[in-house]
Amino acid sequence: MSRTVYVNGEYLPEEDAKISVFDRGFLFADGVYEVTSVLGGKLIDFAGHATRLERSLSELEMASPVTSDELLEIHRQLVERNGIEDGLVYLQITRGAADRDFAYPEGVAPSIVLFTQSKPGLADSPKVQEGMKVISIEDQRWGRRDIKTVQLLYPSMGKMAAKKAGADDAWMIEDGFITEGTSNNAYIVKGGTIITRHLGNEILHGITRAAVLRFARESQMQVEERAFTLDEAKDADEAFITSASTFVMPVVDIDGAPVGSGRPGPVALRLREIYLEESRQAAV
Amino acid sequence: MSRTVYVNGEYLPEEDAKISVFDRGFLFADGVYEVTSVLGGKLIDFAGHATRLERSLSELEMASPVTSDELLEIHRQLVERNGIEDGLVYLQITRGAADRDFAYPEGVAPSIVLFTQSKPGLADSPKVQEGMKVISIEDQRWGRRDIKTVQLLYPSMGKMAAKKAGADDAWMIEDGFITEGTSNNAYIVKGGTIITRHLGNEILHGITRAAVLRFARESQMQVEERAFTLDEAKDADEAFITSASTFVMPVVDIDGAPVGSGRPGPVALRLREIYLEESRQAAV
Repeated sequence: MSRTVYVNGEYLPEEDAKISVFDRGFLFADGVYEVTSVLGGKLIDFAGHATRLERSLSELEMASPVTSDELLEIHRQLVERNGIEDGLVYLQITRGAADRDFAYPEGVAPSIVLFTQSKPGLADSPKVQEGMKVISIEDQRWGRRDIKTVQLLYPSMGKMAAKKAGADDAWMIEDGFITEGTSNNAYIVKGGTIITRHLGNEILHGITRAAVLRFARESQMQVEERAFTLDEAKDADEAFITSASTFVMPVVDIDGAPVGSGRPGPVALRLREIYLEESRQAAV
Repeated sequence: MSRTVYVNGEYLPEEDAKISVFDRGFLFADGVYEVTSVLGGKLIDFAGHATRLERSLSELEMASPVTSDELLEIHRQLVERNGIEDGLVYLQITRGAADRDFAYPEGVAPSIVLFTQSKPGLADSPKVQEGMKVISIEDQRWGRRDIKTVQLLYPSMGKMAAKKAGADDAWMIEDGFITEGTSNNAYIVKGGTIITRHLGNEILHGITRAAVLRFARESQMQVEERAFTLDEAKDADEAFITSASTFVMPVVDIDGAPVGSGRPGPVALRLREIYLEESRQAAV
């Protein structure tokens, strides 16, 4: 069955969901995106994603073609029309279509595209019990990773390098410190303290990251927001990632060596449980 | 009059020239491009662009959907159908359309798009006599600038920063050394020696750069391929850029201070003359 896709005001069958070849999202990667999880037909942390979207647009001097309320309505329409119980809603806004020129065009309407991906059992991935394997690679991305742009080629290359190495993902290293995973934030646990890189231009300001750290602190867990090295990670008691679509996912192997016991750790599993419980309750 | 645009085997009116929203060029900036100049209805250095295209594709483990001969034929068709005397042919190849996933899809055909831009008098820009003004900005692009990908948001931002400062372009600086302009290679001339950054992952391997350096050496000019600093540039006798669409263009002002006499320099003007003469003769 064909999905229904939203493109610039229209709900279209996916085979008709097209944009101009002059769209700056296609020609210049001049666009931003968000991915919101759906559990039980409801949106997880929609408000967080809408707020970050506004920030990304603002950093690039772009306007949103829709209000936050309209955005929520489009999300809900797509979830309903596509019968999404568990899955994702992907949203992309670009600066719009104009004849090719590096300078931003004037008077051009931004483009907006949304589509869904059905992922039955999204919150019950068997990977949780097994744990993820990651490799380390150099971080070669651009300098403004706090803006959630579609310049995702390097993360794609990193994902492929991981696959070739028999791993699930890659953690990126810059100036000796881990920045983050290809599409997730990275954490280690040492002596009961959760350590994850501080916010800055170097990493994405994860919506799931913010929620998980809040829940951790509310549960009286120790949290340190600071950069950590690959050696620290390899020597940690446990490791994990967070992202909108994986929630909290244990990491049990880095560059072929087990982290801690080599099994998913109790802190990661507990945080996952809290995050899913709280997020389901707050879902809209 | 609507342009004719080439999209995946079809010649279409530009308003019908569309690609799937699932194209990885749109979702991941997973694509490469080339821009070939047209002078007098003929293609400038087509072979150079075709060769670099193959290299970009190969670095990203992508296949070309067309042979080099077919590519030439599409270029010529578009030049003819759109009546381009002077202008550009833009070409983009992406990994193709597939449901969104960071990992490369398997068995998906690459997408190919070409369009023209008419630029009457392209080789007679009044800017040549006036010279360009540039500002310096930090180079925040990703690490593989030798691959000509569509991850062009930062160069776009640089171009806008230049416009706001009343300048024409921005030269980017990394670790104290100038890498290149937003869409061109950067040069200075000091004591009769032409200095331009050596090839590496840090800069685009300019097709025009290669031709201009060859012509310079054939004309017994001294050439040094090495990194140079902003201070060296500001203290130079002259400065210029090269690109497929500007050929050789003098730079007369950096960060608001004149370079040398503050007028287009003799080396830049002579190289432009040689480049245009030789390139027109070799055009196909």
